[in-house]
This record gives sequence, C-alpha cells and structure tokens, in this order.
Amino acid sequence: MASGGFWSLENENGGENSNQNQSTPRAWCQAAHKFTGDLGSKLYALLNVGEGEKTASTIAQKVGDPTENCDCNKPCNCSKRNLDFSNLYSTDLLPALDGDLATITFLQEVVDVMLAYIVKSFDRSTKVIDFHYPNELLETNNWDLSDEPETLEDVLINCRAALKYSIKTGHPRYFNQLSTGLDMVGLAAEWLTSTANTNMFTYEVAPVFVLLEYITLRKMREIVGWPDGQGDGLFSPGGAISNMYAMLVARFKMFPEVKEKGMSSAPRLAAFTSEHCHFSIKKGAAALGIGTDSVICIKADERGKMMPSDLERRIVEAKQKGLVPFFVSATAGTTVYGAFDPLNAVADICKRHNIWMHVDGAWGGSLLMSRKHRWKLDGVERANSMTWNPHKMMSVPLQSSALLVREEGLMQSCNQLHACYLFQQDKHYDMAYDTGDKALQCGRHVDIFKLWLMWRAKGTFGFEAQIDKCLELSEYLYNKIKDREGYEMVFDGEPQHTNVCFWYLPPGVRYLEDKEERRRRLHKVAPVIKARMMEHGTTMVSYQPQGNKVNFFRMVISNPAATYEDIDFLVEEIERLGQDL
Amino acid sequence: MASGGFWSLENENGGENSNQNQSTPRAWCQAAHKFTGDLGSKLYALLNVGEGEKTASTIAQKVGDPTENCDCNKPCNCSKRNLDFSNLYSTDLLPALDGDLATITFLQEVVDVMLAYIVKSFDRSTKVIDFHYPNELLETNNWDLSDEPETLEDVLINCRAALKYSIKTGHPRYFNQLSTGLDMVGLAAEWLTSTANTNMFTYEVAPVFVLLEYITLRKMREIVGWPDGQGDGLFSPGGAISNMYAMLVARFKMFPEVKEKGMSSAPRLAAFTSEHCHFSIKKGAAALGIGTDSVICIKADERGKMMPSDLERRIVEAKQKGLVPFFVSATAGTTVYGAFDPLNAVADICKRHNIWMHVDGAWGGSLLMSRKHRWKLDGVERANSMTWNPHKMMSVPLQSSALLVREEGLMQSCNQLHACYLFQQDKHYDMAYDTGDKALQCGRHVDIFKLWLMWRAKGTFGFEAQIDKCLELSEYLYNKIKDREGYEMVFDGEPQHTNVCFWYLPPGVRYLEDKEERRRRLHKVAPVIKARMMEHGTTMVSYQPQGNKVNFFRMVISNPAATYEDIDFLVEEIERLGQDL
Repeated sequence: MASGGFWSLENENGGENSNQNQSTPRAWCQAAHKFTGDLGSKLYALLNVGEGEKTASTIAQKVGDPTENCDCNKPCNCSKRNLDFSNLYSTDLLPALDGDLATITFLQEVVDVMLAYIVKSFDRSTKVIDFHYPNELLETNNWDLSDEPETLEDVLINCRAALKYSIKTGHPRYFNQLSTGLDMVGLAAEWLTSTANTNMFTYEVAPVFVLLEYITLRKMREIVGWPDGQGDGLFSPGGAISNMYAMLVARFKMFPEVKEKGMSSAPRLAAFTSEHCHFSIKKGAAALGIGTDSVICIKADERGKMMPSDLERRIVEAKQKGLVPFFVSATAGTTVYGAFDPLNAVADICKRHNIWMHVDGAWGGSLLMSRKHRWKLDGVERANSMTWNPHKMMSVPLQSSALLVREEGLMQSCNQLHACYLFQQDKHYDMAYDTGDKALQCGRHVDIFKLWLMWRAKGTFGFEAQIDKCLELSEYLYNKIKDREGYEMVFDGEPQHTNVCFWYLPPGVRYLEDKEERRRRLHKVAPVIKARMMEHGTTMVSYQPQGNKVNFFRMVISNPAATYEDIDFLVEEIERLGQDL
Repeated sequence: MASGGFWSLENENGGENSNQNQSTPRAWCQAAHKFTGDLGSKLYALLNVGEGEKTASTIAQKVGDPTENCDCNKPCNCSKRNLDFSNLYSTDLLPALDGDLATITFLQEVVDVMLAYIVKSFDRSTKVIDFHYPNELLETNNWDLSDEPETLEDVLINCRAALKYSIKTGHPRYFNQLSTGLDMVGLAAEWLTSTANTNMFTYEVAPVFVLLEYITLRKMREIVGWPDGQGDGLFSPGGAISNMYAMLVARFKMFPEVKEKGMSSAPRLAAFTSEHCHFSIKKGAAALGIGTDSVICIKADERGKMMPSDLERRIVEAKQKGLVPFFVSATAGTTVYGAFDPLNAVADICKRHNIWMHVDGAWGGSLLMSRKHRWKLDGVERANSMTWNPHKMMSVPLQSSALLVREEGLMQSCNQLHACYLFQQDKHYDMAYDTGDKALQCGRHVDIFKLWLMWRAKGTFGFEAQIDKCLELSEYLYNKIKDREGYEMVFDGEPQHTNVCFWYLPPGVRYLEDKEERRRRLHKVAPVIKARMMEHGTTMVSYQPQGNKVNFFRMVISNPAATYEDIDFLVEEIERLGQDL
C-alpha cells in the first residue's frame, strides 16, 4: 500500500500495517485516524488535556466542544463538523498558535469543494460554463476588497463562487483552446508545487525541482534528437516568452555586443517566419527593439505551410537591402491550421545563409512523443532552438513551456548578470545547478514538477497514446464533416494536427446565390453559434477569420477526456444552434 | 456552517441540514457521507448494483471488494483503504470510465501527504531543510523518465520524496529569501487556481479571474494614490518581468515607432537607477536592445539610497553626450539594504527633465499597506509606473507580481498585435475585459486569485498587521545585535525595511589586528556558517558581499510565522555554528 502519509518515509509512525490490524469499520475514519498518527496525539492533547489549556481559551471557545458527538476512543479529526467557520478568521489558521486543527479542517473543506468540482468537470450532464456577462457576474457576488477581514465561512463561499463561474476546462466538451483537459496526476503535482512554494533560481531553495528540470530538459532534447540530449534550456512562462528567449539568444549569438551596447551596435536585423506564425514572434521583435517591420512574413501554401522558395527569395532580398538575416522561426503546428512547416527545407536554407533556426513547436512539438506522428517534425534536430509547450497537446496543467537550445552555455552568457546576493560564488555545493542567471526572470515559478510527475505516471508511451487518440478523433471529425451537407472545409486534405477548420452553412445561407451576401451572412454564423454555445453552456469551440476568409470554426482536440461521442455531439450542437441562421 | 460542498450552491442536494439530522457519530465519516451527497449515489451504484457491472470487470478487480469491512448503510467512500495503488495507474483515474472513486482516493492521499507536510512546516522541532548535495540527491531516488508508466503507489512515493527534500519555505526559521512563509488561505487559493486550470487572456476562458484582476489592480492603484485608482496594469511572472514591462512601456511612450521600426529609429537612450538596484533593470535593458551600458548607475548614500544630486548630474551629463534619458527606476526597498530611494526628489528631477519615473517596489511596495510605514514611499503617487510584488512582503504564494501604470491604454498600444484567433472583435460580451493583448505573454498564468482571496480573508488591516509585525521583528533584531559583542552592522542606523545587514565576527577573527587578514577571514565566515545551517537544517539566512564589503549576512523577515524567539534562535545559532571559525 502506498498510503501512510509523508511521515512514513521518516519512520515516525508505525506505518500501514498497524492500521490494518485495527478493526475500525469505516475506512474514512481509519484514514482520519491514520492521518492523525503523529499529529493526532498533539491535537488530542491540545483539545482535551494538559497543554491544551491555552487552546481552550481561544480556539475551543470558538469551535465549541470539538469532541461532541464523537464516540472515538482515539485521537481523531471527528471535530471537523463542529468547527464553525462563521466564527473563525484566517488569523486562526497556522501559523497561529495551535492552529493545526482549524487549518486542516479548513483546507479539507476546500479540498472537498475541489473534489466535487473535479468529478463534475468530467460529467457530460453538467455545463462546460455557467456563463454570465461581465456586468451580471459583478452583481452575483460582492467581489470588492475592503479593510476588514471576512470569516473563513465567507472565504469558502468565495471559493465555491469562483469555481461555479469558471469554465470547466477539463470538461470533455471543452475544445476552445489549444490547452484543454485536466490531468489528475498533473493536478496533484500542482497542488504539491503550491505547497512547496519555492523559486527555481537556485539549488539552495529548490533542490528537487532544479534537478528535475535538468533531467526533464535533457530528456526532451534527446527526443528532439540532439546527441546525448546535450544542450540547454529552461521552462518559461508560456510559449510567447519561450519564443522571445529564442530570438534573444539568436541575436546574442550573432551580435553579443548588443547585450552591452544595445541595438545601435548591430546592423539592421531581419527575422523570418510564416504568415501563419504565432503573433508572439512579432511581439518578441517589438519588445527586443528589433521592430515588427523587421519580421518578414513568408508566404504559406494553401495548407498553411511556409513555402521554402519564398523564404529563400526573401532572405536574398533582405540581404540586398542591407539587412542582416539572423533568425528564422519555423512553426511546427500553426495555431489556426495546425500546419507543420517543412523543417528540413528550412534547415537547408538556414544552413546556407548561416541563420539561427528556431522551431516554434509550442503546439505541435508534442508530436515528437508519437512514433506515428513525429515524422511531421523531421528536421527539428537541425534547429538551433525549439519551443515546446507540454501544457498544450500533453495536457500538463498551465503553464508548462520549454525553450530548448542546442548550444550549451549560450543562455547563460546571454542573460547572466552575476547578482551576488543570489548566485554567491562561495557556496558549499556545485553551483552549476544555480541556473537562475540563464533567465530573464529573477524568481521563476516551479513549472517542472507537474510535467515530470505526469511523465513518470504515464511513461513516454502514455503520452504517445494520449496524443495519438486526439489525432484519431480529429481524423474522425474531418471524415465526418468533409462531405456532409452544410459543411465546407477551409483547406483540402486531412489535417496534420488536430486542427479541423470548417464553415458550417445553415440552410438559410447554404443556398444563397449572391456570393457577397453569402460571405456576409456566413461571417456572422460562427460568432452567433459560439455565443449560443456559451449561453447554453453545452460546449465551446473557437472561431476566427483568416486573411480574406470569413469567420470559420477552428476545432482542436487536446483534451484526453474527449471521445467519438463528444465529436458527434459537437456536430449536432452546431447544427442545432445554427439551423435558424 | 460553511460546509456543504460546491454543489450546495446549485441546490442539487439536500444541503447541510439533512446531514445534521443524522446520528452518525464520527464527523469524518459524516464528512465523507456529505461529500458523497450526489456523487456517492453514483459511486454506490457503480460499486454495488446495476450499471456497476462494467466497473466490476475493471476497477473492482483491481481494488478488491470495496465494501469489505464497511458497515455503513449509505453510499460512502469507505473503500478508500481497499484501493491498492500498487495495482493502479494514472489511466485508472478520471477521465477513465468510472474513475471517480480512484481519483478521489488518490487525490485525498496526496492531500494527506500535503497536510502533514504543512503542519510539520510550522513545527520548530522539524528541520527547515533535509539538505543533500546534488550528487547525493540524485542517488536517493530514481528520478529518471522512461517509456513505461509507473503505478500510483510509485507516484505517491515521488510526491513524498519531493516534499521530503524540499525546503520548508513556510518554516518560522526560514529567512533565506524575500519571499518566505506559507499562507493557508493563499495556499487554498492556489490549489483552487490549479483546479480551474485556465488562462488569463480572455474573459471567455477566465471570467472570474479576469474580473478579480481588474478589481485588485484598481485597488492597488488607489493605494498608490492615483485618482480613483485609474490607470492600467497586469500581473506578470515576477518582478524582473514587471520591471522590463515598465521599461518597455516607457520607451513606447517616448518613441512609439520603436515598436515597428526597432531601436534604429530612436536615438541612443539612457536609463538611470541606483547602484543598489535590482539586476533586472540591466537584464531588461539588455533584452530590450537598449544595452546594459545605457543603464547609468547613480551613487547611493551610505544607507543605500539613491543620491538625487548625482541623478541630476548624470542626466545632464548624458544629455550633453547626446543620449536621451527616458527612464528612471527608483527602488523602494533595495534587495540587500532594504533602502528606499527618496521618491519625491526623484520625481522632481523626472518632471524637470520629462523622464518616465518607475518605482521598483517589488520588495518595499507592500509597505503602502501600512499606515505606520507608508511614508517611506512618499512620492510614489507621482510615478508613471510601479512594480509591487505581493509574493514578497505580503507572503502571497509565488508568483504574485503586479506592474501598475498610471496612463491607461498605453500597455495595450505598446503590446497589442490583434491576434484574430484570440481577440475576435465580434464577441457577444464586452471585449474590454479581454486584456490579453496588453501582455507580452500569450497564455498567462492565473496569479490573481490567491492575492484576492487573502485580501478578502485578512482585509487591508490584516496585511498591515502582518507587515508591521515583520518590521517590529527586524527592529528587535537590530537592537539586539547593534551593540552586541562580535557583531558589526554594515550600515548605521535603524533599517527602513526588514533587512538587517551585519557581520558576525567569531572570537578568532574579532581580535585580529592585521586588517587585511581580518577581512580575508571574515569573508569566509558567513559562507561557512550558512553551509552549516543548511547541513544542520536549523535555519537559513542569506549572505553576500557588496562593493568592497566582504560577505555579510542579510537577514530579512517576511515570514508571518516568525516570532521574537526565532530571532533569538537565529542569533544563538550563528554564534553556535560560527564560534570556532
């Protein structure tokens, strides 16, 4: 048995076997008793005898007799129901003197709220969202901040309200974003990460997490195909920041003097990416002082893939204009179409022109975990850097975004500033693990544990199965609607990722002969259906226009909870909500 | 009573009263029964009758007879102890068909591990850290990632191991960083945030959290002193990023064309900050293409405060050299000394020269919550932007860092790129709440709920009390050691923040006459004592050199769990561990 609590590792209690010999009939009570193994004796003492006297004057007055209605003969948590939260405040919780009981009871109450929410999240009979317009939501509750504290009862009410009005992002019919799903092991790891509440900058304050980041990044680089998993990287707060890091490091590699001297020491630079790229490439260029005009958008083919011939042409053109090409970002899984740029062809061009090749695999990078689908990223091993967001296709809780860099030491040279109060050079351990100076951030959130623990729980094969299943579902959707009356695909052919882009044409639009009128009406269909989905709360899927194409649905599947029936439901729901348009 | 679970809001079950009429004696069992209010009937059906047949073939085989040893007459979780995690995998958890029971039991097991850890964290008889050197830690466990999954029992072992080797950052004797402490309400809010697992970019996917960010930022701006709390802002992944945002927005305000044209469209810029500033100002300048050489460090006085006369002089000098001063970052609470730059004097100079004034209050900003101490930030209301990290002095779980900007709309103009797949312009709700385009990040972690919920639970007065207490403790420490034998203060006078900087001189160093030898020996004292602290696990405090000053201890107090006795302990421990040096 794996139970026994944290202390069992430290041999401070008799462990599981002794519990099994007890004849207490109710297992939950047994769990409580077990939990109170070492704690309980303290609680018991506090609440009943001896050193409990000082408690009696404070907590006990507030909670009444905590042993009331309890016929346990042992130290226990039976007083849970007697804790009157309407009379307790946060100051009654730890580190308050003898705040243990109130703390455990309060946290357990929050856990109960969450467990109920989690189970409901997977129940198709519940709504994906209980939608309210902003002004309505403001009126459902008093959300204001004031000088005076509120009771723990009110705090719990706030917790329930926050979840009640949140999206159930783990719901099997939530398809709205590239990040969906709620993984139970990942969630447990996030709870634990919050409990550890530390920072990634030094081994000193995050020994376990720093090592796990090291191990996980190396594993990811092995999967990319870099020899022995060598190279560098870190987990950053999202794909946009990872992409910005890549651009920053690429600039440093070519013009290291920019770090001290600024962009005035470099010639005018040029970066290249597909017209279907993620907007973070331009955001990064704006922030880094390169400028959005220096991001040259390369034509994509009908399927959304960058055209190598156009890339080559534009690089040559830029050089002729006196610009210095320094960065190409190929996209592995575009946001809207799910297209994979031809990485080998891009790598050839980058090699020829000596340009840093970055692969933005925020969305599609996870396909590297699938033996069936990883060919779509062939050539990624030739890249200089890669963004890969496990919080998307691998359903790791938000956020989990890795930047991987092939050349070791570059991130450190690029970003380090040797803050002596943090990265002391006379520490008693191997300071190679103090990786904080690689980052732009000082404090960095622990994003590693959830991915690492999920990987342990699933194995690479488990992630593969999850990813393959999502791709099967999208293939199913594609086959279901490609010839179905009332549907038009935005691009021909089977999607490469789980993105299925399509128009639904309600009967009133379907037969319109005036093409302009048809376009005009069709443009409004997806927003209305989406609004109705949210008001009914039945499902959520994204839509957008693109180029000269009017609003279309972009279905994506990254939610491991989704099934064929949910795909069928989505199609039926679109038709049900849209047929009168 | 506040209990009743999430569903009680939705009136789907009889609620609390019906439970109170039951005569079940053990409250924990009652809680289990209550929890199973709606869920339990499903579980009961699954496990015993009817539709449970399909379960019997899967889960039940693995878990044995879950009703064994249970004499409940009702649906219940009594099977908890019968779940054999060594035979279960993550694929048995939700969204697995009928994965409810395994999920709840697994998550509850993790919660038990965490609750025990939390209680221990506040227990002074436990170690702050069970320290192992990196190579040792790698050997304590198998941390590698493999293709095959491991059982949930192994997952739980990993959870226990991760906590066992982590720092107890909530421990009353953990003083190592500016962020310490573990707030129970904040922790509950983080757990809940992880459970909601969503993104901040649109109202659509985070209705509650987006509103709460809006409300909280407005409140913070009110406290800063901007009329009606008007202005702008967002929560970013840490103070370094908040400072970088400020510099980015300041540059955009003066040279908006840099967004498109890059730094080649602007003259050479100059930024100014104290020589005691946080290193993120230079990191930001490096990243933004401004260059670290363009960050001009202004002299600080003996107490670490920026000298306005030097600021004025250096601005004039920069102008004479043809540079364009665009940004002054005054520090409110420096990292090492805890010094507050004279904000009104800085504001006068910025006004005179028409320069953006930023206040880096990552560490000291929280003193605005204290009526007794907020005078230290007098003049902050004249700033154009401010960084304020509630995860430091307000003990909000990591990360919670706000950037506040006085001029509304500037962040949006600076960073927006109108991604049409995310910020559709034909949504059915007020799109003013889709604030994602203000950010450099695309997906943004929900950092707001923990701060908001703590504020509700404590009230502004509660934060004030917490902050005032930490300052009292540092005053106590200062008074205790300033004239104590063997101590030398790094600067004279009472600290303005909770930073107390001092040398401890062991007897062997204290009486050395050779000044150079004394310096050399003293430089090694703090690192050795710190290493011993970690090896003993009794306490942790930071040290560093600064300028020509050899290694000294920087004691900071942000941990609400700390007491006078812990300060006494620290002093005794330093002397105990250092007396032989």
